[in-house]
Amino acid sequence: MSCHPDRERPLDGDIDPQETVPSRKNTVFVDGVILNGPTTDAKAGEKFVEEACRLIMEEVVLKATDINEKVCEWRPPEQLKQLLDLELRDTGEPHHRLLELCQDVIRYSVKTNHPRFFNQLYAGLDYYSLVARFMTEALNPSVYTYEVSPVFLLVEEAVLKKMIEFIGWKEGDGIFNPGGSVSNMYAMNLARYKYCPDIKEKGLSGLPRLILFTSAECHYSMKKAASFLGIGTENVCFVETDGRGKMIPEELERQVWQAKKEGAAPFLVCATSGTTVLGAFDPLDEIADVCERHGLWLHVDASWGGSALMSRKHRKLLHGIHRADSVAWNPHKMLMAGIQCCAFLVKDKSDLLKKCYSAKASYLFQQDKFYDVSYDTGDKSIQCSRRPDAFKFWMTWKALGTLGLEEKVNRALALSRYLVEEIKKREGFKLLMEPEYANVCFWYIPPSLREMEEGPEFWAKLHLMVFQINP
Amino acid sequence: MSCHPDRERPLDGDIDPQETVPSRKNTVFVDGVILNGPTTDAKAGEKFVEEACRLIMEEVVLKATDINEKVCEWRPPEQLKQLLDLELRDTGEPHHRLLELCQDVIRYSVKTNHPRFFNQLYAGLDYYSLVARFMTEALNPSVYTYEVSPVFLLVEEAVLKKMIEFIGWKEGDGIFNPGGSVSNMYAMNLARYKYCPDIKEKGLSGLPRLILFTSAECHYSMKKAASFLGIGTENVCFVETDGRGKMIPEELERQVWQAKKEGAAPFLVCATSGTTVLGAFDPLDEIADVCERHGLWLHVDASWGGSALMSRKHRKLLHGIHRADSVAWNPHKMLMAGIQCCAFLVKDKSDLLKKCYSAKASYLFQQDKFYDVSYDTGDKSIQCSRRPDAFKFWMTWKALGTLGLEEKVNRALALSRYLVEEIKKREGFKLLMEPEYANVCFWYIPPSLREMEEGPEFWAKLHLMVFQINP
Repeated sequence: MSCHPDRERPLDGDIDPQETVPSRKNTVFVDGVILNGPTTDAKAGEKFVEEACRLIMEEVVLKATDINEKVCEWRPPEQLKQLLDLELRDTGEPHHRLLELCQDVIRYSVKTNHPRFFNQLYAGLDYYSLVARFMTEALNPSVYTYEVSPVFLLVEEAVLKKMIEFIGWKEGDGIFNPGGSVSNMYAMNLARYKYCPDIKEKGLSGLPRLILFTSAECHYSMKKAASFLGIGTENVCFVETDGRGKMIPEELERQVWQAKKEGAAPFLVCATSGTTVLGAFDPLDEIADVCERHGLWLHVDASWGGSALMSRKHRKLLHGIHRADSVAWNPHKMLMAGIQCCAFLVKDKSDLLKKCYSAKASYLFQQDKFYDVSYDTGDKSIQCSRRPDAFKFWMTWKALGTLGLEEKVNRALALSRYLVEEIKKREGFKLLMEPEYANVCFWYIPPSLREMEEGPEFWAKLHLMVFQINP
Repeated sequence: MSCHPDRERPLDGDIDPQETVPSRKNTVFVDGVILNGPTTDAKAGEKFVEEACRLIMEEVVLKATDINEKVCEWRPPEQLKQLLDLELRDTGEPHHRLLELCQDVIRYSVKTNHPRFFNQLYAGLDYYSLVARFMTEALNPSVYTYEVSPVFLLVEEAVLKKMIEFIGWKEGDGIFNPGGSVSNMYAMNLARYKYCPDIKEKGLSGLPRLILFTSAECHYSMKKAASFLGIGTENVCFVETDGRGKMIPEELERQVWQAKKEGAAPFLVCATSGTTVLGAFDPLDEIADVCERHGLWLHVDASWGGSALMSRKHRKLLHGIHRADSVAWNPHKMLMAGIQCCAFLVKDKSDLLKKCYSAKASYLFQQDKFYDVSYDTGDKSIQCSRRPDAFKFWMTWKALGTLGLEEKVNRALALSRYLVEEIKKREGFKLLMEPEYANVCFWYIPPSLREMEEGPEFWAKLHLMVFQINP
């Protein structure tokens, strides 16, 4: 490794602006601080990064994906606090001690990349998105203006364009943001803006009661969003689902009529493609018909199920999604892009997203820059600083191609099929229903209950043991 | 590097659950997919990660912080699109080609760690938070439940506790979230919940017009938040500031009275500690008096200025902050923790944050777990998946100690002092005002205007050239 002793330009009381290598003849004291020279030992810092990278490679990339290693070295909170040196003190720790701390952090963390980790969201380690994530952490960009993030803004544009193509829209708009929950908030606010643009300035006070519809099996972020946006959780109408967890379109229409009769103002239907527990897909085509008849915005929460769009075999699960006004789709789930990687996509191309979200901050979004400022997409966002999340998905897509991503989806669904067949064969396992996606819901019946009749007592006892696996 | 041929356990049609090394005698086909054996070549993937890490080390950690290298190889959007191979295709690219792509991405990205990069937010490369970020990207956790993120939830608790101590509260609560803008939204919603808890369920419809107060120099996220939360931008009262950009407390009180007279419902004052452009600090003590008199929630947006709390010399800038009900503070700015690292902090310890934000999702936040579920802090959040942002700040704090962080702040402010003195000495530079923080605002007067009188024509011409530097 080369050494850069002049990494930081020393300040000098007498700097000649033409001089490229400044002299160090004077020491500059200001407010008791010596300003000359580097503050950090760059060489030691670089060595620390190198050593830590070696540790991460050994302990996380290799060991934490090894089937022969533990998924987790479990300790309850109070005990773990004793094992870790969490306290923040006046003086710092030397590098060797920091590396020990890193080792402890890895040791007691859950290995979400492990092939036997079966909690929410994960599907193993993806080397390509990992590299992309290392790169963006090192470059530390913020994607609000093109001048600060030229590459990452173009990458985001390219990824959004391709996702829009897979939804089946001719054109569209979108923004990567910190989570499916936030995407759903974006949708709710945008639908509200479309319904009544004045709300941006005037707020909801004095307006009729806005009401939205989603299925009883929707993600809990719908309630969070309604509460956060001032709509209120009571104005989320939970439409009944069928035995497979799918919204019943006739029930939706009945509830829309009912709401209108009660003087409320319906403005939005949130369908779900891939519900959290059952993995159910709402019938989008029929729901779109209802939305068209009543002039309602159709948002599809495909945070989980959107990945099926990559598979020619399984994309029929989302049949009708091209009729949606907006879609939430998280490549950080089945497509393994790393947390977080979440797109909010909009069919509109009349700049609705920008009109709804812009605050036109003059210190950031000057209109007289020396390039096409339509690339300064930060004003479409509820955030100011924003991470380049699209890049990690772009890298995996580049590495595997569309066909490789398709294979991932097909494999995940074939695996759940396999699991279903195994469950059927095993004594003591009871499949809840045939899955349509990667969620396989089943009961484990302990030996003591296997001979019992399926009455209230049976279910009360069984409810003490619940399993759910998302392969 | 060791090789792990059995990294992924191959599936088998005939697996004996007791068998630890399964046989590979059968090939399992399900839905046309071969399920046996690893899908990815782990060894090749690991080699790719190693090579990419070497590239990142050379090109970003070393070269992109080198004063002799460029901050940016600038290309306008259309030209950059030609230079980068952005397109996503059906088939993937080989590793050597991916590494070339990585090289291109680095080449055309802005080097925000470079000592001569003077755009928003940044202050060079911090080796410690960088290592923490590499670790969390490799571990890929989500901090909603203790069972999935034991270490990172305890780290978050430790960091929040320490930040609360620096604010001067005896106790408190908080949550790391994706940005100062989002922190301000958290505050606005929490203050509203405190004002009227029913809004969570009922929404704003039919309520009197809620109104909030902030200074004319506040961050633009206040308007974004008011619009997003259904309050409306017109219900943000911008209180006049003095010549230094500080909110005038008498003006605040006058506007509160005025709003009440007009039948509106004041509920919140957002003071700013470190405004975006001028770096002004609102007089918190006087503002807290007004809030107390009128029963208003006091939120302090210290996203930028909060770091001064680390310095015994400069923390007086935030005198009175202990009287705030909530604070936004971003260690990703002057304290260099990497984007994003933003804390929203609350004085209340009656679980107000949780009561306001919880949706009690039963699939995630079961109440009958085998550990103390008060560590499942995810239900305090508007997000579901959440990144372990506290960890990067914790690592830097561990490495440098409180004294090291204090030195960073003192040095940044001494540097701006130095810049001010240099501006005063140079011909053609005109200081706007003496700074109180790290923002130094000045005009560059081009030679053609130096003899001109400071009338409307002078200012019109000068406005075509604007500089602002946040050291």
